[in-house]
Amino acid sequence: MSLKVGIVGAAGYAGAELIRLVLGHPEFELAAITSNADAVQPLSAVYPSFAGVSDLVFTTHDAPELKNCDAVFLAVPHTAAMAQVPALLAAGVSCIDLSADYRLSDPATFEAWYAAEHTSPELLKTRAFGLPELFCQDLETAASDYADGKSVLVACAGCYPTATSLAAAPAVRAGWVAESGPVIVDAISGVTGAGKSCNARTHFCSADENLEAYGVGKHRHTPEIEQILGLADRIVFTPHLAPLKRGLLSTVTLPLAPQALDTLTLEDVVDHYKQFYAGRTFVRVLDAGQQPKTASVVGTNAAQIGLALNKRAGVLVATGAIDNLCKGAAGQAVQCANIVFGFDERRGLPTVACPV
Amino acid sequence: MSLKVGIVGAAGYAGAELIRLVLGHPEFELAAITSNADAVQPLSAVYPSFAGVSDLVFTTHDAPELKNCDAVFLAVPHTAAMAQVPALLAAGVSCIDLSADYRLSDPATFEAWYAAEHTSPELLKTRAFGLPELFCQDLETAASDYADGKSVLVACAGCYPTATSLAAAPAVRAGWVAESGPVIVDAISGVTGAGKSCNARTHFCSADENLEAYGVGKHRHTPEIEQILGLADRIVFTPHLAPLKRGLLSTVTLPLAPQALDTLTLEDVVDHYKQFYAGRTFVRVLDAGQQPKTASVVGTNAAQIGLALNKRAGVLVATGAIDNLCKGAAGQAVQCANIVFGFDERRGLPTVACPV
Amino acid sequence: MSLKVGIVGAAGYAGAELIRLVLGHPEFELAAITSNADAVQPLSAVYPSFAGVSDLVFTTHDAPELKNCDAVFLAVPHTAAMAQVPALLAAGVSCIDLSADYRLSDPATFEAWYAAEHTSPELLKTRAFGLPELFCQDLETAASDYADGKSVLVACAGCYPTATSLAAAPAVRAGWVAESGPVIVDAISGVTGAGKSCNARTHFCSADENLEAYGVGKHRHTPEIEQILGLADRIVFTPHLAPLKRGLLSTVTLPLAPQALDTLTLEDVVDHYKQFYAGRTFVRVLDAGQQPKTASVVGTNAAQIGLALNKRAGVLVATGAIDNLCKGAAGQAVQCANIVFGFDERRGLPTVACPV
Amino acid sequence: MSLKVGIVGAAGYAGAELIRLVLGHPEFELAAITSNADAVQPLSAVYPSFAGVSDLVFTTHDAPELKNCDAVFLAVPHTAAMAQVPALLAAGVSCIDLSADYRLSDPATFEAWYAAEHTSPELLKTRAFGLPELFCQDLETAASDYADGKSVLVACAGCYPTATSLAAAPAVRAGWVAESGPVIVDAISGVTGAGKSCNARTHFCSADENLEAYGVGKHRHTPEIEQILGLADRIVFTPHLAPLKRGLLSTVTLPLAPQALDTLTLEDVVDHYKQFYAGRTFVRVLDAGQQPKTASVVGTNAAQIGLALNKRAGVLVATGAIDNLCKGAAGQAVQCANIVFGFDERRGLPTVACPV
Repeated sequence: MSLKVGIVGAAGYAGAELIRLVLGHPEFELAAITSNADAVQPLSAVYPSFAGVSDLVFTTHDAPELKNCDAVFLAVPHTAAMAQVPALLAAGVSCIDLSADYRLSDPATFEAWYAAEHTSPELLKTRAFGLPELFCQDLETAASDYADGKSVLVACAGCYPTATSLAAAPAVRAGWVAESGPVIVDAISGVTGAGKSCNARTHFCSADENLEAYGVGKHRHTPEIEQILGLADRIVFTPHLAPLKRGLLSTVTLPLAPQALDTLTLEDVVDHYKQFYAGRTFVRVLDAGQQPKTASVVGTNAAQIGLALNKRAGVLVATGAIDNLCKGAAGQAVQCANIVFGFDERRGLPTVACPV
Repeated sequence: MSLKVGIVGAAGYAGAELIRLVLGHPEFELAAITSNADAVQPLSAVYPSFAGVSDLVFTTHDAPELKNCDAVFLAVPHTAAMAQVPALLAAGVSCIDLSADYRLSDPATFEAWYAAEHTSPELLKTRAFGLPELFCQDLETAASDYADGKSVLVACAGCYPTATSLAAAPAVRAGWVAESGPVIVDAISGVTGAGKSCNARTHFCSADENLEAYGVGKHRHTPEIEQILGLADRIVFTPHLAPLKRGLLSTVTLPLAPQALDTLTLEDVVDHYKQFYAGRTFVRVLDAGQQPKTASVVGTNAAQIGLALNKRAGVLVATGAIDNLCKGAAGQAVQCANIVFGFDERRGLPTVACPV
Repeated sequence: MSLKVGIVGAAGYAGAELIRLVLGHPEFELAAITSNADAVQPLSAVYPSFAGVSDLVFTTHDAPELKNCDAVFLAVPHTAAMAQVPALLAAGVSCIDLSADYRLSDPATFEAWYAAEHTSPELLKTRAFGLPELFCQDLETAASDYADGKSVLVACAGCYPTATSLAAAPAVRAGWVAESGPVIVDAISGVTGAGKSCNARTHFCSADENLEAYGVGKHRHTPEIEQILGLADRIVFTPHLAPLKRGLLSTVTLPLAPQALDTLTLEDVVDHYKQFYAGRTFVRVLDAGQQPKTASVVGTNAAQIGLALNKRAGVLVATGAIDNLCKGAAGQAVQCANIVFGFDERRGLPTVACPV
Repeated sequence: MSLKVGIVGAAGYAGAELIRLVLGHPEFELAAITSNADAVQPLSAVYPSFAGVSDLVFTTHDAPELKNCDAVFLAVPHTAAMAQVPALLAAGVSCIDLSADYRLSDPATFEAWYAAEHTSPELLKTRAFGLPELFCQDLETAASDYADGKSVLVACAGCYPTATSLAAAPAVRAGWVAESGPVIVDAISGVTGAGKSCNARTHFCSADENLEAYGVGKHRHTPEIEQILGLADRIVFTPHLAPLKRGLLSTVTLPLAPQALDTLTLEDVVDHYKQFYAGRTFVRVLDAGQQPKTASVVGTNAAQIGLALNKRAGVLVATGAIDNLCKGAAGQAVQCANIVFGFDERRGLPTVACPV
């Protein structure tokens, strides 16, 4: 039996990717797509890929259809989700939120980094954090609650935090990382990560044939990565923009604790990672000596991880490659929804990228 | 009076860039271009940009014209320069070497990283290291020797080491870097950095819309960066490939020494960097809060540096943007040649990138 | 019940795309993939997108498994299919050929344009021409023969001829085109169209940020387009290469016959085209005033057509956009196979491109 | 003695390219740059390539400095030049106009295609048409007038008309083109041609990995091409957008007159073209069998032309490659200015593109 699904903020890039996935999902029925900016426009006028595939028309965010949905995905800027989620939950609609609003457990941290007051901090205690491979428990609880008839809230992890944490968590959780000292995260993203808004940064002639770092030391994904990995005040996160549409590669350099430095071999590391992710369809740990290519995962919900042990300098370098719009946003949201609503987590999610 | 100049390995990308710069240099006369692979072919057949500009034809590497040159630029793979330099110097021809052969002061390090025996290690003591903004003395000595009628050897720094060291050296030399702990260098380069050779990595359909790290922990530029900065065994260097032709951005994360961490402000850092590079035409230190774009320097010998102080995690993040073929190779070579041969260092070097 | 399928020349780009489609096809079971160059290599080593998805290993072209297949797709260069098809057909294996070998009905034309003797011209009379929307009859006959237990041969149309003919055929078949005068076809393709082979043209640094025409007046697709449209000696075909991976746009300028010029309106043209393709899932005729974007169809078997009537100069300009590897090669091959083997033609074929 | 030069609309792409060229021009002194949108901003803030090179600040379009210039370049949208030119001329300031306002000789044609009334049609009789290789007389007259102390007006040809006309004019003027029948012009341009304005079309994620035709049958360059070539109502012009920044390739298919068709050989054509452009530094006619690459001319004022004779279909296919911002706009403007103001036409104009 189909789940009736709505998408708020459906005209942005993550929203459009959600539409693509939901339309192809055997158990989801896309009932409403909202966008204040594009309200009244047919979907296919804004995104010609959907011509002949869907007759949906964008409505404004306060569309009544939303309250009739079983679940709503919110792909809106921060603070915009907070404005709608409480009412939706109260109306019995489960919310899968792609924004940052409910990711940070501590509202004070949210307020410090997002310069906005959190208007429903009580929900932070009960929401499920949406990064399935690293926080199974949250989603299992949400699934159980949903089965009991409650409406649930899932806060999906951000794109950089997803790639970064998938790459780093197994080492961190194994206790291999030194107790102190900075953990460096240098990541590169394609331009879809900068959003659909047209501005000096996203103009083709500005982004093409160019590389630049941005938000250096100030990027809001910093506290999220620190929270996921449990490395408060230690993450140095520098994102970079590169001239491609989709794809995100995060390179994490972890200083090793003395014992790990002495005893670990690269094979140990690779084995541990493979065991850590055993049975997790979407995460592939590459063999020793291999590095992931973002093109291998674009268009899919897959993540690939590469590992290199540098004993000389005493670090482990872990790289994580994802499609920032899929596993970094819409794909992960659908994966979380699958788990919460009782489906196999792979339902409706592409796994094979175009080979070229 | 013109200096007669030859270019060995002129058909590769760095070689072609050297041709472009030398043809436009008021004091240089391009007398010979060699390439075993393209011997006998007209330059304009291999590089159509030179059609109507030059009638030069590639000759093999043992062309006699080379010995009649005042100076020869060598843009060849490692070990290939070693094979020719001693004889050229003996013939009174000064050599500006773009290969790695004479960069590393310790022949044992060269042999360890390049898996090749160094055939003229005695030259390592007297060669000038070619990174003018950081090693003025070497080039001044070479200029003096040249003026005395000797043939000199300059070993130009590699592309990644150039961007990285320009970004990091002022902080390192100020004593701001912690005494121990890894120094992370994550850099991104356009595909010209991978060379003219056609292979799986350089095929358009492999590099386009893709990001990947390579040579992780093994890249040969590691010991060179360590030598330039005096940070033996501390550099963790991870290069990445991105889908653009020219451009290189290096992000260096330097752990700060306690005193620096306590007292420095970002303005202090920017001021110090600006003073450090005062009078150095080609290096521009951006104001606090600004980050360089590689597109701002492509086609020129310029470098731009951005700075960000992260007191929370105790690091300074310095980014350096260059054109890997220009300031990272040919431009720097010409700049060194200008200094050695007694010209203003800016002669024949473009400084203004296309604005778009 | 699954059809056992093999792919010859599976390591090229069209071959890899076939693998992607066949692996995702509910009725096909991929039994063998051959490639002389990559024989013995695991599929995932050559195409990392397939890591964890398939354990197949490339075998040489003479692999015995091929004879046990129900059908074999051949994605090989011209003349290479001719070398294998007769024996496969004789062994009861149906062949879906993506090469040019059996497209041209007249062996003399093949020999003139491909500079090779046709070694099985008798098959040209019975093969089905593989462009379903324009040659239904061929494939229905092949389907009928297959149902009768015969092995059949389908020669799939080339990429440029597919986009060009879909755009032009409705006007040609309506008798709107002048009886004489050249019909101009200027098309643009992404670099996957140039093949997997690494050479000066396909090097990233040669193709990026560049446009060029090639094969001007000599391209082998010329006679194929003429054959499909019935415009002998009238097609002027100029292909161009642009810096993208996948995507092909063909702009056809058809001189109008006097009556058509006098009476037609753009609405008439659009209506006729929509009727012509009514019920054809994969071809979408855009409304008057709209032009197709190749990005709207990449990764899918869809084609989009735009129309513009220019009464001033007396022509109809029709544009056709496809993914050169999908509807221009592998997708069309699978579509033809579906029809021949009795499945719905849409089986296993993606229809929704990534919206961004 | 320096010519004092101003640039109106200096913050757009053509304007920025003008700034680059004027700053590097030995005889020009850049005295004023105007932009209503960016008024008050330093040049280097809007275009970081100029950091450290120029301290100029944008002023509004009514800046008094303009009237003190010897010449003003106008790089503004159509109708905006008309608003300023008469007053500037009256103040003794010569105008080099990059807009379309004064290109079309017949004001009725301008009004039909640009949907705007021409406010100074009297200037159309005396303005020089700025395409030096094809209209020497105009610029010689203007140079003479200028030498006599008059202020002159030059209307520079548009980008598509420039590439197209350079490719077609020699054949047209030789009388080789059939008397009637459409002349097809299919051209491709990089995204700088779409302007600096950020919109759905110019967003990186819309333009990247995409091809599309636009303005089909309606593009305003149509009457301009017809006027230059003297082919009223015969030009079918279809522009296309491709994913690169700079570069424009125009493919012109000219139906041949019977005599030309019978007697011409490709060598005849190439010879005629080479003679036609003999002594014209910026135009290079390639040898028979060669096709131009836009990358060979990017960043320079050069144009390259390729030729192919198709006797089968009775046409000559001529391709013209330029940099749309240089020879297609700013470079051509400077070239015209050089001629008018009595300098060698090559002054300050780059001729050698980056080889890679």
